[in-house]
Amino acid sequence: MKYAKRMSEIKASEIRELLKLTEQPEIISFAGGLPAPELFPVNEIKEVCSIVLEEDGRKALQYTTTEGFKPLREWIARRMNDRLETAFDCDNILITHGSQQALDLSGKVFLDEGDVVLCESPTYLAAINAFRAYGCSFLEIPTDREGMVISELEQTIQSCPNAKLIYVIPDFQNPTGRTWNLERRKQLAEISARYGIAVLEDNPYGELRFEGEVLPSIKSFDEEGNILCTGTFSKIFCPGYRIGWIAGDKEVIRKYVLVKQGTDLQCNTIAQMEIAKYLELYDIDGHIEKIRQIYKNRRDLAVQTMKETFPDSVTFTNPQGGLFLWVELPDGIDAREVLKICLEKNVAFVPGGSFFPNGGRENTFRINFSNMTEDRIVDGLTRIGNVLKSFQ
Amino acid sequence: MKYAKRMSEIKASEIRELLKLTEQPEIISFAGGLPAPELFPVNEIKEVCSIVLEEDGRKALQYTTTEGFKPLREWIARRMNDRLETAFDCDNILITHGSQQALDLSGKVFLDEGDVVLCESPTYLAAINAFRAYGCSFLEIPTDREGMVISELEQTIQSCPNAKLIYVIPDFQNPTGRTWNLERRKQLAEISARYGIAVLEDNPYGELRFEGEVLPSIKSFDEEGNILCTGTFSKIFCPGYRIGWIAGDKEVIRKYVLVKQGTDLQCNTIAQMEIAKYLELYDIDGHIEKIRQIYKNRRDLAVQTMKETFPDSVTFTNPQGGLFLWVELPDGIDAREVLKICLEKNVAFVPGGSFFPNGGRENTFRINFSNMTEDRIVDGLTRIGNVLKSFQ
Repeated sequence: MKYAKRMSEIKASEIRELLKLTEQPEIISFAGGLPAPELFPVNEIKEVCSIVLEEDGRKALQYTTTEGFKPLREWIARRMNDRLETAFDCDNILITHGSQQALDLSGKVFLDEGDVVLCESPTYLAAINAFRAYGCSFLEIPTDREGMVISELEQTIQSCPNAKLIYVIPDFQNPTGRTWNLERRKQLAEISARYGIAVLEDNPYGELRFEGEVLPSIKSFDEEGNILCTGTFSKIFCPGYRIGWIAGDKEVIRKYVLVKQGTDLQCNTIAQMEIAKYLELYDIDGHIEKIRQIYKNRRDLAVQTMKETFPDSVTFTNPQGGLFLWVELPDGIDAREVLKICLEKNVAFVPGGSFFPNGGRENTFRINFSNMTEDRIVDGLTRIGNVLKSFQ
Repeated sequence: MKYAKRMSEIKASEIRELLKLTEQPEIISFAGGLPAPELFPVNEIKEVCSIVLEEDGRKALQYTTTEGFKPLREWIARRMNDRLETAFDCDNILITHGSQQALDLSGKVFLDEGDVVLCESPTYLAAINAFRAYGCSFLEIPTDREGMVISELEQTIQSCPNAKLIYVIPDFQNPTGRTWNLERRKQLAEISARYGIAVLEDNPYGELRFEGEVLPSIKSFDEEGNILCTGTFSKIFCPGYRIGWIAGDKEVIRKYVLVKQGTDLQCNTIAQMEIAKYLELYDIDGHIEKIRQIYKNRRDLAVQTMKETFPDSVTFTNPQGGLFLWVELPDGIDAREVLKICLEKNVAFVPGGSFFPNGGRENTFRINFSNMTEDRIVDGLTRIGNVLKSFQ
């Protein structure tokens, strides 16, 4: 029996494997990207679940269209237009099995073997795995505090005829937590139009802004229809439902719909109806505000603790939102070695090397600050700080 | 902007497009593969949904492992062992987004561009689409009343060095409704072992047997670990949840788990917990028995009506279970032409041509008998019979 060639490239996600280790309750884990479960609106969901089953149980449990539940797609289009200056209606939206599936479908729609994906360096680990399954390679574009360095992007495109897709996370990037400024957003849309290259603007965290102004999406500057955006209910509602979306021009979304048909027919009907009912009956803005406040406190506390306990030679980002911050150690210190000692002290994070598709930069790691309570944040980061001191 | 090459091959599923047409309530549709919604245990699901959220709401709404909810995987392993003579435990099972995703993941695990899938002729339409996305072609193996003609399969393998995967639906096949006999099952397992070719045994309908004896799975004769099986809750519980599975030897399932990680991380957590809770608290066997009785009555009525109203030159199968039967018209009559007239008379079915990956056999069509009430079955099939008479 022979596997496909891609199977020699596909590796276990370091995060998912670490998550198994960190399931023991004594571990203080900054490894996952898990939302705080104490914020899930459990009682409200119980309520909407009953209502959906009472009002339209047979429909909720039956097959539905590949595109997804229309009232939910309508809500998403309105929300994106209001926040991100897009101009969508429901036919611009396809419901996906979390925004992770939007990445996988993008690989299927755009990537042939030998194609090149241009991405931020570093970039989201599971996007690397999603795209790699379609036989692509990656060119990493340098990033600074303002986002991708667009001049470097343009040079790379000019020297790379197989460049097929530009993948970016402009808001509270995973893993760095950084946000692109307005100028870079406009410039990327221009580059995409000039060179006719598709852009995937992945935006799972955009709603979780703690301070500063919401910026328009890259898509809002798209004049050629080359730009696609993702979104998800995982971070503003709950991830267990696995409901996200891909948004773009109608002609492109129709391609995604065809691809999703063969992939898994459609998303969970009742999950879509429950979320739509929640959005109808409850105050999602109030709920998101609660999440923002708590994550902001956790970020503040994390940054504060790191300032106090990490050696001065260690630098880290201070993100304006999202779930993650990014740590750089002095050259020559391997974050995997640091992790080994930290695990002995029952504290975990994700070493940064895996976020670079072409390897390297082992002196980095990612901290998730959304999932642990405040006392554990202080305790855990202090432990990491002590371990780091031993590496000086 | 350039799409992947595969996009020129991927077509809209004729069924999904037809389903949109047939959403008007006046249409009597034999087109879908939809279960009867009046059989969904809506009240019981309302109950288990409340219990799951009360007992463990935060867990139900959070991320979980890629493999899936363990108690559900344990139930599936026991069920398969009891019914299909397999020897599984929970680590032989990966929960998938319906059994359709098990097909897609199989394409990802096994198929490179240029590989060949060997399948029954005709075969399940959406499997063709799922596999084709990975750049394979198809060789159709003739089938008779007892299943795939194994001597033809072996000859094809010998002349086709790129044969990579054998795809079969041995129980109440889609679209023909036919079931493989015991001998053919054993022979296929032998062929798979002899030539080292993976087999995907797709089994979404096996639990819906109306008469005759349950036969062991092809997997139960597997000595080399080359055989994978699918299953789903869509036909015995409800499809809206999108919960199915792939089962196989542990080493192979670990490959599927890696691939699913990059594809969509995991299936809906709460859906898995709700189904597991239903299986714990309610009598699924009693529920399936109810479905069987009703579908059996519908099949009886369909076959009876077709005997009475279809011209003698038209032949059709009389399946022992499942959801479908298969109609063959005299050579030269195009089922798509018949459908046009039938749609004018508000009755629909799926023309058979699309079930042949390499085209042809336009004188066939598929009838679904599970979704319409008894009076509509008689009324609708009589209308089709009248249209068919006009083609004589």
